[in-house]
Amino acid sequence: MVPLPSAVVDEAMRIAVAVSESARGISTPNPPVGAVILDAEHRVVGTGATAAPGGPHAEVVALREAGAAAAGGTAVVTLEPCDHTGRTGPCTEALLAAGVARVVHALADPTPAASGGGETLTRAGVAVESGRLADEVARGPLRAWLHRQRTGRPHVTLKLASTLDGRIAAPDGTSRWITGPAARADVHAERARLDAIVVGTGTVLADDPALTARGDDGTLAARQPLRVVVGRRDLPTGLRVLDDSAPTRVVRDHDPHVVLAALDDVNDVLVEGGATLAAAFLDADLVDRLVVYLAPTVLGAGRSAVESTVVGTLADARRFRRESVTALGEDLRLDLVPAAAPSHPAAARTQQEQTCSPE
Amino acid sequence: MVPLPSAVVDEAMRIAVAVSESARGISTPNPPVGAVILDAEHRVVGTGATAAPGGPHAEVVALREAGAAAAGGTAVVTLEPCDHTGRTGPCTEALLAAGVARVVHALADPTPAASGGGETLTRAGVAVESGRLADEVARGPLRAWLHRQRTGRPHVTLKLASTLDGRIAAPDGTSRWITGPAARADVHAERARLDAIVVGTGTVLADDPALTARGDDGTLAARQPLRVVVGRRDLPTGLRVLDDSAPTRVVRDHDPHVVLAALDDVNDVLVEGGATLAAAFLDADLVDRLVVYLAPTVLGAGRSAVESTVVGTLADARRFRRESVTALGEDLRLDLVPAAAPSHPAAARTQQEQTCSPE
Repeated sequence: MVPLPSAVVDEAMRIAVAVSESARGISTPNPPVGAVILDAEHRVVGTGATAAPGGPHAEVVALREAGAAAAGGTAVVTLEPCDHTGRTGPCTEALLAAGVARVVHALADPTPAASGGGETLTRAGVAVESGRLADEVARGPLRAWLHRQRTGRPHVTLKLASTLDGRIAAPDGTSRWITGPAARADVHAERARLDAIVVGTGTVLADDPALTARGDDGTLAARQPLRVVVGRRDLPTGLRVLDDSAPTRVVRDHDPHVVLAALDDVNDVLVEGGATLAAAFLDADLVDRLVVYLAPTVLGAGRSAVESTVVGTLADARRFRRESVTALGEDLRLDLVPAAAPSHPAAARTQQEQTCSPE
Repeated sequence: MVPLPSAVVDEAMRIAVAVSESARGISTPNPPVGAVILDAEHRVVGTGATAAPGGPHAEVVALREAGAAAAGGTAVVTLEPCDHTGRTGPCTEALLAAGVARVVHALADPTPAASGGGETLTRAGVAVESGRLADEVARGPLRAWLHRQRTGRPHVTLKLASTLDGRIAAPDGTSRWITGPAARADVHAERARLDAIVVGTGTVLADDPALTARGDDGTLAARQPLRVVVGRRDLPTGLRVLDDSAPTRVVRDHDPHVVLAALDDVNDVLVEGGATLAAAFLDADLVDRLVVYLAPTVLGAGRSAVESTVVGTLADARRFRRESVTALGEDLRLDLVPAAAPSHPAAARTQQEQTCSPE
């Protein structure tokens, strides 16, 4: 085999991660995997991401694109190729049939049913490398699925969108719009990548939000996340969240544990508010990622983004660790993960540098 | 004369700005000016910043360092050289005596008494250029002095230091420490560069802060800003703010206009809190710069950073424009200026890019 430079593999793995972004929200309950096929001269000849359940896995999509060029080449995959027959055949079989000489994957498959792919490939004479860019890949599109495998519950992202002094509404209840168009578009893009959006009945009754993922022109995104309304208050008919533009589930309980138990078919959940529900998830230690949109304004009065009835002293504060800061027009987006209990062990090992990217 | 590349002048101007940083808080009421002398071959042969009142101006300090090398050279200065005799002689005279062939300054002197320096130099045969990096220089150490010349009042920086949900204290009053050591050290460095720190009596009575500028080891900085305590409540003896580690002024009024009128001998003021005083300055539209320290924590209850009794609806929110985002350990520092009424007209013309620097 022609020696394979490390930088080429890293580059291919990053392409695989980028490609797999398109499978988020689509592949559930399967993991959103990305795959890149390099030919024997290390040129990219195929890329693929996991299709919707029942459709082909990422490796198969990429192999189809590569065709005969895969023979003697390398498959670079974000997750260890599966070794079992579910609704589709095992990926190991497809890789062997294509004559791939080498497989590099970032993360070993943690599920008993699908794991063992690396071993099967090795026994068949394929050179297998595991762990390439593992930390980076674990923070990417696979994050929520890995979280579900490890904890048995969905990965929870809490979104806060407030003024610099933490306000989400003025004393008279006005709240539109605190953040600007770029931040709001980012929220819609985030919704389209997630499995479910959770809001409290208070927010639904106060603001009547549609909670759909929409484009700049207001048109619905091709895929809509499940809308989940939680709380004990009754909902009148005619609310936008109850229309037929996206599926909706009502959970008549405010306890975050009960809410997550009712979401056993989704992996990636966004809690959008309001302040009481945000506090309930934080107080229950059920926030795995925090996304804060900060408008460059100071309100000075009105409702705060998080309103807990439990917190009494400074030691009760929830600590996070900054992952990134992004400018979105005039607003800032901060991504954070819990400081004490990171959402993935890989994240704890890497003290990540702060990044600041243009919008 | 050997042609002078534009990049060389810009570089010299940026050195002049950096040098003038050391004059902040020292030169008041005079402007903190920086000067760089280039010899005839455009090499830096002298730098200087304005000394304390009665001491030499920046040009004179830089010329002394340059000595004979200034002849035929260039003086690069942040502010137009003065043309009048105060406690020191005119800088124009010193520049002509040194045989400088060219003077480049960023900003024309706006004061009737000291202006005209450029004209005097031109008449004497010196090549004079004005306006070089004017916007950049106007945002630097001269900002507060320029503000005083334009508005007749000090430049006001409001500092907020809070959790991500805008809290500055828990329900039981605990507030130490919300931000980390790097952010607190930055506050002390900021204090040392300013003329005065303003706090309300409520904060003094609740926290008994020293309000001095201290180093990491707790030792007092060489220069201390004036401590200003404002409000109508009586102060008991023995408070740290009343000790002899720095001068203190008590203004028995909470109205920001009255407070600033009592500070006619200072240009650069930092309002440190608490929440009521912050709101008073914001509601009076007397905040020229906003510095927000954000800890990566969520508290969920307790006092917010700004507590106004006037604000009622979202349209009352004060809008700012982000100048920079800086990581300070785990915390973030955001620098902002008012969006509607920028603190310096130059800032309004330049839609500045967001910057994000490592700590």
